[in-house]
Amino acid sequence: MKFNNINVHISKKAKIGNNVKIGDNTIIYDNVEIGDGSIICNNCILGEPLNAYYCGSEYENPPLKIGENALIRSHTIIYASCEIGENFGTGHRVTIRENTKIGRNCNIGTLSDIQGEVTIGDYCRLHSNVHIAQKAIVGNYVFMYPYSVITNDPTPPSDLIKGGIIGDYSVIGVHAVILPGIKVGENCLIGANSLVNRPVPDFTLVSGEAAKSIMDVRKIISLGGKGRHYPWMYHFEKGMPWAGTGFDTWIQGKQ
Amino acid sequence: MKFNNINVHISKKAKIGNNVKIGDNTIIYDNVEIGDGSIICNNCILGEPLNAYYCGSEYENPPLKIGENALIRSHTIIYASCEIGENFGTGHRVTIRENTKIGRNCNIGTLSDIQGEVTIGDYCRLHSNVHIAQKAIVGNYVFMYPYSVITNDPTPPSDLIKGGIIGDYSVIGVHAVILPGIKVGENCLIGANSLVNRPVPDFTLVSGEAAKSIMDVRKIISLGGKGRHYPWMYHFEKGMPWAGTGFDTWIQGKQ
Amino acid sequence: MKFNNINVHISKKAKIGNNVKIGDNTIIYDNVEIGDGSIICNNCILGEPLNAYYCGSEYENPPLKIGENALIRSHTIIYASCEIGENFGTGHRVTIRENTKIGRNCNIGTLSDIQGEVTIGDYCRLHSNVHIAQKAIVGNYVFMYPYSVITNDPTPPSDLIKGGIIGDYSVIGVHAVILPGIKVGENCLIGANSLVNRPVPDFTLVSGEAAKSIMDVRKIISLGGKGRHYPWMYHFEKGMPWAGTGFDTWIQGKQ
Repeated sequence: MKFNNINVHISKKAKIGNNVKIGDNTIIYDNVEIGDGSIICNNCILGEPLNAYYCGSEYENPPLKIGENALIRSHTIIYASCEIGENFGTGHRVTIRENTKIGRNCNIGTLSDIQGEVTIGDYCRLHSNVHIAQKAIVGNYVFMYPYSVITNDPTPPSDLIKGGIIGDYSVIGVHAVILPGIKVGENCLIGANSLVNRPVPDFTLVSGEAAKSIMDVRKIISLGGKGRHYPWMYHFEKGMPWAGTGFDTWIQGKQ
Repeated sequence: MKFNNINVHISKKAKIGNNVKIGDNTIIYDNVEIGDGSIICNNCILGEPLNAYYCGSEYENPPLKIGENALIRSHTIIYASCEIGENFGTGHRVTIRENTKIGRNCNIGTLSDIQGEVTIGDYCRLHSNVHIAQKAIVGNYVFMYPYSVITNDPTPPSDLIKGGIIGDYSVIGVHAVILPGIKVGENCLIGANSLVNRPVPDFTLVSGEAAKSIMDVRKIISLGGKGRHYPWMYHFEKGMPWAGTGFDTWIQGKQ
Repeated sequence: MKFNNINVHISKKAKIGNNVKIGDNTIIYDNVEIGDGSIICNNCILGEPLNAYYCGSEYENPPLKIGENALIRSHTIIYASCEIGENFGTGHRVTIRENTKIGRNCNIGTLSDIQGEVTIGDYCRLHSNVHIAQKAIVGNYVFMYPYSVITNDPTPPSDLIKGGIIGDYSVIGVHAVILPGIKVGENCLIGANSLVNRPVPDFTLVSGEAAKSIMDVRKIISLGGKGRHYPWMYHFEKGMPWAGTGFDTWIQGKQ
């Protein structure tokens, strides 16, 4: 249904891999490279030119590289100059701006807005409507939930930019705000609606306005009635590299 | 201006009612049924295929049914397998995912994101940018305001899903978050920015982080200077079935 | 790359200035006026008709006026009947509804949603995903950050509308909510996640739920380690009319 080659425009300077499907009304600009087996749905824009394109006549679009087996849903916009690993997925209407690096097996949900100059590791899941300001560094196996925000300007408005840092395996709840330059450690759980204004040590649950450290996540009794849930890697494996083997076996195999 | 039949693609397997207008650049996939008198604006996608479409060759698009007299504004995406009653309206860029059931006379605002497997009753109004996670059940005559969220995962990330429940006539304020599996009763008022982490009895105003019960909504003195406003059905009737007759007459006629 | 005249539809009743570029798949309806030197990217809709268009046969689209040198990014929708000054910029997927007036040198970020009947002054910067309800009045040199909201209904749902007012040079933080009819003075700083439920005097920092007045912004010690930052006009000039000369020289020249 989606791939009828209607109103599709692909630059002759783009490199499209084998077995790639491209949906109707999609635009692919100069110097985009798409890996084998990828599916690009309809109405997407890949390789959106940078601001310099509007200013001068000698603009050359920097490469956008997307790895193998991507599934990019409709209306997604990804700028030129980004680099994205294999098995990438998006929801609808995602915006990813310039110089963003995203590892492999990541998923970015509907309406999420990555402001550019952002680094995201492997196996991250950003749900709908996550906003990440420039210069953030997000680790691996990080989950971010709707309307969570990583900010970057400590004295708005200013020219000072301090990107946030999120450690591996951490979980950022709905509507949580990470203030500029704050480092969230590994295996943290940032509660819904939290305002995080100081560094968060590994394995910490924080919550509330001027988010207070509540407890060690390993002591949380699960509301789901299944005992302890954190570190979550022992209780959740869908799409993760330890699926089937368990986290301990997988992590030992890595070392 | 909008209906010039330019770049419109309608599946031969779609059933379009009488006097339906379809805007330019809109795509309607297999097995979509649109009721008489509906207006579908430009750049919409109706009957968006489910994930299985990308995986196998024998995919059959499940029906999307939209009742009579819909007004669906531009860039809206509605998945196959949904069922929506008469007099439905949307703002722009609404996303409604699979297996969602929406009653009659509902309105869903610009940028709202219904994640699928959601049930919404009659005469509900979701303003802009409402996010509803899977398995939520929203009653009738419910109002939800921008950036309000119904969540569903009590121990994120996990495979456990506990959808929220919102009772009839309740009002969910701007930026309010309903935590997973929480039941909000009937005639409740959830204040702006609230984080609702426990069940809310009928007729209750709650507010704040770890939202506290503040008072009975029937005791709220209106800031508008018109005395008491709640239950709101006695003071607001635009688009409601009791318009013209008053709520008491209407509710007695139903009994 | 963007301007290939593919699937572009421009009403014969639109007035397009000199040296205007219009991107592929863009629609420009009746009575839109675009100033010289403007760039309209792809997939935009300018002059979106008002609701009356769907109701009657004798509809005349009210004019949308956009000043010189606009840069409107892809997927932006601007309704008929709006008036926007020179040097206007938008991100992607911006929605601006009817009867909105925006001054000159303003910028409105990706996914922002201006609900109509809103007045915005000169040199304002709305970042991504700002929501402004009807009847708000935003002054000059105002900065609003992601997911900040100006609301308007004191007793939701009701027919009462009380728009918010934001004074010149004020800064509204991430996720801040201005409750209906509240006036924020000049040079204020509204902290992230604040819920502002009472008037804010000039030069005040407020923060928190039921946002408390914290201190005079002129006493804030900057986290950036550069001493005092507010009033910010002495420390930030990018795109502002005092760039190069300094704020004092500029403001004295105005008097």
